[in-house]
Amino acid sequence: MYNFDFFNPTHIVFGKDRLNELDNLVPRDAKVLVLYGGGSVKKFGTLEKVINGLGNRQVIEFGGIEPNPQFTTLMKAVDIVKKENIDFLLAVGGGSVMDGTKFVALAAYYEGDNAAEILYSREKAAAINKAVPLGTVVTLPATGSEMNNGGVISYEHGKYGFGSKLVFPKFSVLDPTLTYTLPESQVANGVADTFVHVLEQYATFKAEGRFQDRTAEGILQTLIEIGRKTIDNPTDYDTRANLVWCATMALNGLIGAGVPQDWSTHMIGHELTAMFGIDHGKTLAIILPSIWNVMREQKKGKILQYAERVLGITEGDDDSRIDLAILRTREFFESLGIKTHLSEYGVTADKIDDIVNALDKHGMKALSETGAITLEVSRKILEGAM
Amino acid sequence: MYNFDFFNPTHIVFGKDRLNELDNLVPRDAKVLVLYGGGSVKKFGTLEKVINGLGNRQVIEFGGIEPNPQFTTLMKAVDIVKKENIDFLLAVGGGSVMDGTKFVALAAYYEGDNAAEILYSREKAAAINKAVPLGTVVTLPATGSEMNNGGVISYEHGKYGFGSKLVFPKFSVLDPTLTYTLPESQVANGVADTFVHVLEQYATFKAEGRFQDRTAEGILQTLIEIGRKTIDNPTDYDTRANLVWCATMALNGLIGAGVPQDWSTHMIGHELTAMFGIDHGKTLAIILPSIWNVMREQKKGKILQYAERVLGITEGDDDSRIDLAILRTREFFESLGIKTHLSEYGVTADKIDDIVNALDKHGMKALSETGAITLEVSRKILEGAM
Repeated sequence: MYNFDFFNPTHIVFGKDRLNELDNLVPRDAKVLVLYGGGSVKKFGTLEKVINGLGNRQVIEFGGIEPNPQFTTLMKAVDIVKKENIDFLLAVGGGSVMDGTKFVALAAYYEGDNAAEILYSREKAAAINKAVPLGTVVTLPATGSEMNNGGVISYEHGKYGFGSKLVFPKFSVLDPTLTYTLPESQVANGVADTFVHVLEQYATFKAEGRFQDRTAEGILQTLIEIGRKTIDNPTDYDTRANLVWCATMALNGLIGAGVPQDWSTHMIGHELTAMFGIDHGKTLAIILPSIWNVMREQKKGKILQYAERVLGITEGDDDSRIDLAILRTREFFESLGIKTHLSEYGVTADKIDDIVNALDKHGMKALSETGAITLEVSRKILEGAM
Repeated sequence: MYNFDFFNPTHIVFGKDRLNELDNLVPRDAKVLVLYGGGSVKKFGTLEKVINGLGNRQVIEFGGIEPNPQFTTLMKAVDIVKKENIDFLLAVGGGSVMDGTKFVALAAYYEGDNAAEILYSREKAAAINKAVPLGTVVTLPATGSEMNNGGVISYEHGKYGFGSKLVFPKFSVLDPTLTYTLPESQVANGVADTFVHVLEQYATFKAEGRFQDRTAEGILQTLIEIGRKTIDNPTDYDTRANLVWCATMALNGLIGAGVPQDWSTHMIGHELTAMFGIDHGKTLAIILPSIWNVMREQKKGKILQYAERVLGITEGDDDSRIDLAILRTREFFESLGIKTHLSEYGVTADKIDDIVNALDKHGMKALSETGAITLEVSRKILEGAM
């Protein structure tokens, strides 16, 4: 096991009817900016419950944060924070709204000329020593943003990750019933996103993190059990509650502490979203099976462990067990209604050059837990994903 | 899944040579009281490393915190904290030292006449609104005290639990190499304590906490794999590191969030320690198999799940699988060198009345996840544990 630090001070408020407690969670005298996305939080009444929950506090609303939240949109919220002396941010939505709110929290105290530097430079992000405190009300289980200190923002033609210890939510309200109204495809994307978050911290090489491995495997088994079920029975509380809690646990630092990580599925996937507008969760389901196929030697130990412990595959030689594990994983994504080949999204092989060039431009020349996924290897992975 | 809150702000500093970082972890201008137990932290050099790590800070030492830490001992530390205006407590040791330090942190700000009321009254403990901040350096993996906000203190002739959100350690340094010099029996006790912490949050009734169940099962499987190994190979880093991390994860609120809990093994075990001086970890190994045998109907669903997922027991009818699961669990404790019958500790059947009376006196009239363990059921459990 590697040396590691684990620190996660977010207060999770989980369960039915917990929005009632907002009044105790948000500082009494705070002037609050409530951030959200499209119309669904209005349409289904969540926004109204939130505003009511804030009692007599001064509240300003900022709607319109889009999927893959745009820098330019978020800077408008930063202007409001500064002009109105906002002292608490409340994100109501999914990963895009939560990530965007974290960016606003930091950018409001950024002292340089261009807050986009938070996205380019880990050092400049880390140098910011104050952020607006924030909370979240989660309406889409997927990204785990409700219990971590990072986010991904779209800027010009790329997607950029950032992080700061200052942007852990102070609290996150996770009421599974608030997710009942989600469209089927968004739940499917959330299941796939959660599944791949786990695998990015698991499918590397063996490193003697037994708690981490088994906890990861437990989330994967749970998602396989409940993924399709919670799409088909959106108002079954326990099934949805298990998805919500697994999504949070998949990316709060717990299963990745002390073990190697490989975020290459996300890095290649980000290019597909930025270039072709494919949903984030779907890009992961497209790329992961091909990465495993191409990197099967490097990842052999862990793919075989996953095959046995998660999928119950114990027969056949190494290669046939790996093949079957990849096939079953692809079938799992497809069981959620997610297509797993690039060509099924209208992306043709002649676009591969452009994707590889974008990876090059964004510095993604040596991906994976060892850096072995060079641009040439990424090309092979993309060819295999067609 | 039940509604729940999860909040755990302790910063974990895990791995080799992390004591070097104490200087960055403790507030720069703090006057520090370093609390420890017997001579072993001196003998093996841990205390010296800690003192060196604290740099130029003013440091006072308070040694002599005994196993099952005594109220009267701890009140001497409280006096020092007040007299010397201590503003940071650093516990160096195992569960007794950490629990004791948490008590000191609270008692120093207790305004009533008798700080023992912190042990008697949850309300009075919760009413304390300030505590001395504390950190820990863990030398014995067992209690999980390094990442929770509770403790157990001996007062007069009983053991009393207490808790407060103010006593989460600010940080805990978990360097597995600091545990290499532990005597075999203390490591065995730590493994048993960890194992039963997990089972107290698991072996109840099914409640649709799939993440919680599988994470619990993962810790149990890990302990079965490494328990004997880490006793036999105390300086094998990875094996010991897995024990250390599992001990922390077993009692930091994670696996118990949103599911029923049953602390009756601990409650009955505490009386055995208070009356006969039997090590805490050993009392658990004595009591748990008998509780399962007596409560087999109430706990059937989860014992069978444990039998299948943790022990691989799938054949036979319900009762024979439960019998085998209890037998294997007892054998596991015995494989660690722990005797699992009360009579093997010199406790004879004529003492059962006294134990039941002590339970009565301490308010333990309706234990378990449903309250079904009355004093008469406790008597049966004790008879079965002879």
